[in-house]
Amino acid sequence: MSGEFTLIDKYFVGRQTNRKDVLLAAGDDCALVKPGDNVAIAITTDTLVCGTHFVADANPAWVAHKALAANISDLAAMGATPTWASLALTLPSVDETWLEAFSEAFFQLADYFGIQLIGGDTTKGPLSITLTVQGTLPEGKSLTRSQAKNGDWLYVTGQLGDSKAGLDVILDKSLADKPYAQVLEQRHYRATPRVLVGQALLGLANSAIDISDGLIADLQHILTRSQVGATIDVSLLPLSSELLQFVGSRSTAQQYALTSGEEYELCFTVPEENKGMIESALAHCGVKVTCIGQIRPYGVFELHNQGQVVDWQLDGFDHFKA
Amino acid sequence: MSGEFTLIDKYFVGRQTNRKDVLLAAGDDCALVKPGDNVAIAITTDTLVCGTHFVADANPAWVAHKALAANISDLAAMGATPTWASLALTLPSVDETWLEAFSEAFFQLADYFGIQLIGGDTTKGPLSITLTVQGTLPEGKSLTRSQAKNGDWLYVTGQLGDSKAGLDVILDKSLADKPYAQVLEQRHYRATPRVLVGQALLGLANSAIDISDGLIADLQHILTRSQVGATIDVSLLPLSSELLQFVGSRSTAQQYALTSGEEYELCFTVPEENKGMIESALAHCGVKVTCIGQIRPYGVFELHNQGQVVDWQLDGFDHFKA
Repeated sequence: MSGEFTLIDKYFVGRQTNRKDVLLAAGDDCALVKPGDNVAIAITTDTLVCGTHFVADANPAWVAHKALAANISDLAAMGATPTWASLALTLPSVDETWLEAFSEAFFQLADYFGIQLIGGDTTKGPLSITLTVQGTLPEGKSLTRSQAKNGDWLYVTGQLGDSKAGLDVILDKSLADKPYAQVLEQRHYRATPRVLVGQALLGLANSAIDISDGLIADLQHILTRSQVGATIDVSLLPLSSELLQFVGSRSTAQQYALTSGEEYELCFTVPEENKGMIESALAHCGVKVTCIGQIRPYGVFELHNQGQVVDWQLDGFDHFKA
Repeated sequence: MSGEFTLIDKYFVGRQTNRKDVLLAAGDDCALVKPGDNVAIAITTDTLVCGTHFVADANPAWVAHKALAANISDLAAMGATPTWASLALTLPSVDETWLEAFSEAFFQLADYFGIQLIGGDTTKGPLSITLTVQGTLPEGKSLTRSQAKNGDWLYVTGQLGDSKAGLDVILDKSLADKPYAQVLEQRHYRATPRVLVGQALLGLANSAIDISDGLIADLQHILTRSQVGATIDVSLLPLSSELLQFVGSRSTAQQYALTSGEEYELCFTVPEENKGMIESALAHCGVKVTCIGQIRPYGVFELHNQGQVVDWQLDGFDHFKA
């Protein structure tokens, strides 16, 4: 980094939350951290590329939020507590208006979760953002994709489908007049990662994943890694009233909920003996959780609607059934 | 990541060194690692963008080497031992020939240093590579930029200037017939990070930095952070015979050595009382180190040539003198 790009420092250096476990942040060859004893470290990396993950005229504050939220959500799905972020920002030029809005939103979300920006790199090139975010976990505890068991109850947090409806609005400006179009667009960019839920599920849930590619696609990762199947009752899927009015029919909304990506809600499985504890354990999180189905033996994957099998052709669904 | 991009997994997943401190690598929401007790963790991030940091037709093996070496070099400059890497790879399309050469060279260097690739992200977009590489340090020990003291002796590893000459060849094909053009081009891309030297300097050197922007520019970071000055005797700069023949004059070669970036050699300062130990402490590293000057009081920054002050106009030099 040299020349005008050192300007970028102005927006990022010295503004961060100061964590006690950070020995050295920006200004040397590396950042130095000293995690507490008896913790494991969870590490995740996500890249957002302009044109692939967001449109060129996207609000920079929303882009920052989405980039950081995507990473925090991966930590939440492991039950980890977010701690440190490294930001690699590639920009075609130094646009101070863009940087100010981007950095402001970045630190708003980072501060909320107690994450310190410890370093990174700024380079000249086509606009993209790569974040590596780390978190800590009590040693020997974590939520993974591989421990779901036949009979587990299947849950999701929040409401599903809004992100896909928001993406419709972003990609097709003619939808901007439909009911709640702007609300849904904002939901696409500004999800809230479920960190508290993930932490509360450590020791209660058998498996978890965050919904980034769509419920069916992400649930498949649990099913494949755990060698189990599942049934989902689509009538139980949590839908927002805004989504129902935007798409105009309940079955379309349910299909949105099954395939909507970048939701950053958690999908998790809970053994029968812990089912009664879930509501009280999550009471402090302020997030609704909904039981939408059950884990079944390997090879079973069915959508039900109040007892009847539903045969919807959805992306990723047939692939798994094979 | 979806569709054809899952193909990329084929080149990266399951090929890595298996470290005992990695609990979970690719395949879940996060990687999980468990560092040993009494260590601090050093973290560095570097991005290489096609068109900014390498040319579009650059050998993919050399690009992989340069991307990883740049990060390892930052760890070396802290005295850290490299451990884990996260790779964010953005590609315009899935080019299997490119990926095979890139991944082969990546793992060759990673394996050499015992680094495990623990995760990352692959996305579609303009070609760029962001790596976050981590390493460990004994708690309470590190080499930083901020502890140089007046009177310290100033050292560099290896030879300087070859990288800049190699870049000349890359950017101007008409130079390809000059002596050693291909050797120098390869040196630009394929530096060897000085990890063993960095480790050996813990407790012996007062400060260190790696040479990524050029000796003068990088030394300035030490001087500024440590509030000291320096003198360099340009006649002591270590120059390769290839560089001398390529540029054709000793003073041009010396100027190359002062300004050549992406050398990934170390620049470090050693207090008088440790000077006698340097050679024996570094004997096992197989790397030549050269004393090129001395740390002086703040505000002094001079180039000498066998006792005479040299007044070369070099990038970054006047800036500091102000």
